[in-house]
Amino acid sequence: MITATLTNRRSLLGLKELGMDEIASILDRAAYWEASSNKLEPALQGKFIANMFFENSTRTRFSFEVAEKRLGAEVLNFAAAVSSVQKGESIYDTVRTLESMGIDAGVIRLKPNGVLADLATKIKVPLINAGDGNNEHPTQALLDLYTMRKQFGELRGLTVSIIGDILHSRVARSNLYALQKFGANVQFCAPASMAAPELGAPLVTMEEALKADVVMLLRVQLERHEAGMMGTAEAYREQYGLTTERASRIAPHAIIMHPAPINRNVEIDDELVEHPQSRIFTQMQNGVPIRMAVIERALN
Amino acid sequence: MITATLTNRRSLLGLKELGMDEIASILDRAAYWEASSNKLEPALQGKFIANMFFENSTRTRFSFEVAEKRLGAEVLNFAAAVSSVQKGESIYDTVRTLESMGIDAGVIRLKPNGVLADLATKIKVPLINAGDGNNEHPTQALLDLYTMRKQFGELRGLTVSIIGDILHSRVARSNLYALQKFGANVQFCAPASMAAPELGAPLVTMEEALKADVVMLLRVQLERHEAGMMGTAEAYREQYGLTTERASRIAPHAIIMHPAPINRNVEIDDELVEHPQSRIFTQMQNGVPIRMAVIERALN
Amino acid sequence: MITATLTNRRSLLGLKELGMDEIASILDRAAYWEASSNKLEPALQGKFIANMFFENSTRTRFSFEVAEKRLGAEVLNFAAAVSSVQKGESIYDTVRTLESMGIDAGVIRLKPNGVLADLATKIKVPLINAGDGNNEHPTQALLDLYTMRKQFGELRGLTVSIIGDILHSRVARSNLYALQKFGANVQFCAPASMAAPELGAPLVTMEEALKADVVMLLRVQLERHEAGMMGTAEAYREQYGLTTERASRIAPHAIIMHPAPINRNVEIDDELVEHPQSRIFTQMQNGVPIRMAVIERALN
Repeated sequence: MITATLTNRRSLLGLKELGMDEIASILDRAAYWEASSNKLEPALQGKFIANMFFENSTRTRFSFEVAEKRLGAEVLNFAAAVSSVQKGESIYDTVRTLESMGIDAGVIRLKPNGVLADLATKIKVPLINAGDGNNEHPTQALLDLYTMRKQFGELRGLTVSIIGDILHSRVARSNLYALQKFGANVQFCAPASMAAPELGAPLVTMEEALKADVVMLLRVQLERHEAGMMGTAEAYREQYGLTTERASRIAPHAIIMHPAPINRNVEIDDELVEHPQSRIFTQMQNGVPIRMAVIERALN
Repeated sequence: MITATLTNRRSLLGLKELGMDEIASILDRAAYWEASSNKLEPALQGKFIANMFFENSTRTRFSFEVAEKRLGAEVLNFAAAVSSVQKGESIYDTVRTLESMGIDAGVIRLKPNGVLADLATKIKVPLINAGDGNNEHPTQALLDLYTMRKQFGELRGLTVSIIGDILHSRVARSNLYALQKFGANVQFCAPASMAAPELGAPLVTMEEALKADVVMLLRVQLERHEAGMMGTAEAYREQYGLTTERASRIAPHAIIMHPAPINRNVEIDDELVEHPQSRIFTQMQNGVPIRMAVIERALN
Repeated sequence: MITATLTNRRSLLGLKELGMDEIASILDRAAYWEASSNKLEPALQGKFIANMFFENSTRTRFSFEVAEKRLGAEVLNFAAAVSSVQKGESIYDTVRTLESMGIDAGVIRLKPNGVLADLATKIKVPLINAGDGNNEHPTQALLDLYTMRKQFGELRGLTVSIIGDILHSRVARSNLYALQKFGANVQFCAPASMAAPELGAPLVTMEEALKADVVMLLRVQLERHEAGMMGTAEAYREQYGLTTERASRIAPHAIIMHPAPINRNVEIDDELVEHPQSRIFTQMQNGVPIRMAVIERALN
């Protein structure tokens, strides 16, 4: 269980520990930011935020950077690949170093499980989880909930199918924890080797998964599974991919989601990415106001 | 032929399709910015510009970044080497992602021919070409024209020799298209294997090339040709390099240009780079006001 | 001997050539900035500063970036690994290029000795040394002096032990030059193969070194020495590491310093890094106001 220290109570480490009201208030504040016509708001002028990405990411990092700059904050971008982490410096030392330099909050993405939970007990500035091993990815789930709520008005009673490598997915976990709080029905669709029954959500067939209000595909970690459990990209597409044929059978009111980046023609056929029922680029658009709300919460 | 969609009419994809008046108005606006004494102008405050470099570049990227920041814009720097492009994400998905996040314009540099033209039909925000395969490099040619116009008062009647690998040079193409509109005489000097006769400019000998008002050297892509058509660096210098001996024979009023980065003692001898007749660092200086004019045009 | 040209008199190339009064005035100004409650000061609004790191660094680069942004300057970050330096462009050409684009000052870190001294005679904008081969690292020593002065009130009469690879250390040199001007007693502790007797400071045993007011460990360049002079990390720790056992024998008023990044359990035992007598993270904290003072001095 991850809990933040008292001084860190504005951190966002995961959605599992957050109350429904708190989540709803983040979504509401994001709606305010989405409606805000000014591109630049000086709310956080003079505040320094460090984006510390110990794991590569284009999308998430830029989404945070746009959010931070829209709020008027000063942004420091740290990426492990060009840093002294190569020289053996630990993640802790890097975060502690940036804290010493006077940052007001840190956005952090990392691979090893458990490190973020440990950091949160030692670092005094608020930390925002931008992807934590196989554990949680709360801002992704928040933007997913925001996208669903905007589409359907409310989350209660929605059926959400999450399809793919559940076992290794922080996106699946954060969505599950948050959606259940709102009374949505989450179901997983995955091969047995990637199922994660300990999460307690029902496992359904692909046919069953397609009947949901939300059909959410997860990214296949081809680099992780290439020669392994998943088989080839073609085999994956055949069993768990949203092909045009399968997409023709989802409900007319249903929407297609994907956290991206997409493996086109693996998880989802090329021509479906910008299909009228797809919300994939809408999700990315919603990421900015969500992250503005999360950062503002961390610093106010 | 590259044409921008209507919503993209403030894009700058190339100079081939641009009228002489439009080019002249960019040069005039650059003169305004060069004369502006304020380092920072809030003209574009609250605007977000993404520099998307799918091909490495120090000079061009920083020139754009300085221009953008002088105009007060917020800058996002994307470089492919540290991004999910590594994970197989397409250029389109990256540009579309940044567009979804609310950027107001994109500056883009890429290798594969034809991709930019295709992007311009799909992306709604203005795109500025910062180097497009072997096709065009319009801001480089604009700063070259600006440098020549400043030196000689007008472009009509000037003779401009462009020396080197014409076949693969987007700089040569953009300069040719633009200079011809203004009534300058462009001539190429290159080995037959790199000539590009389809562009229609006369091919001259090195001796003839040295008689021009402007002697423009192109960068040798040593990494491309090392074991190939160009032979060794020494052989290239001997045949097409501006040696001190050759430089002693150019006209006293003539100027030496190079888009940089320079291979010293290959295209041009070391001691000529900052020769009184060289405008190489002046070109870089002029790049900033040119790019300010181009970005302002894209966003106004 | 490194001296800046007249136009470059606001450069900071090293502490060897700087007078004690000048150093003291930088420390005093840093104290002003440390006390300043505003995170953002528009003192340098509209000024452009380029951080040109031809050698990797997390800590130093971010420390400068925070300092520059706190002063309201616009920041350009250049790192060699993702630039045309890869294409053979020289350091000089890169710096000259950024100067042409209108930067107001450059912060520079590089490996080859002698290049910075040469650059300073050719580049007109002020240059700030952020790590110069094995020569000097003046801002590190300034923050070290600042930390000691804050701890002990004054530097005169302090005994400072610097332990490790003195021969290759720019940190050791800059500290030696500056501390001696203030009348502190600097002593080195190192194996004979890394001693640098030409610097003139006494070489003491580890036992003797531990009796100082300041026990400063240097980073072991494991990547440089792995199979070499230093032996293994374990052997280094045994001979020159600050172990918990050795730390128990330093004076109660003494402080532990390290320029970082740290090799935990090599130069210093893990549990000592945040020991009450350690000032390691305090040093990092002090780096920001020191660099604000240095940058302000360069531009005013």
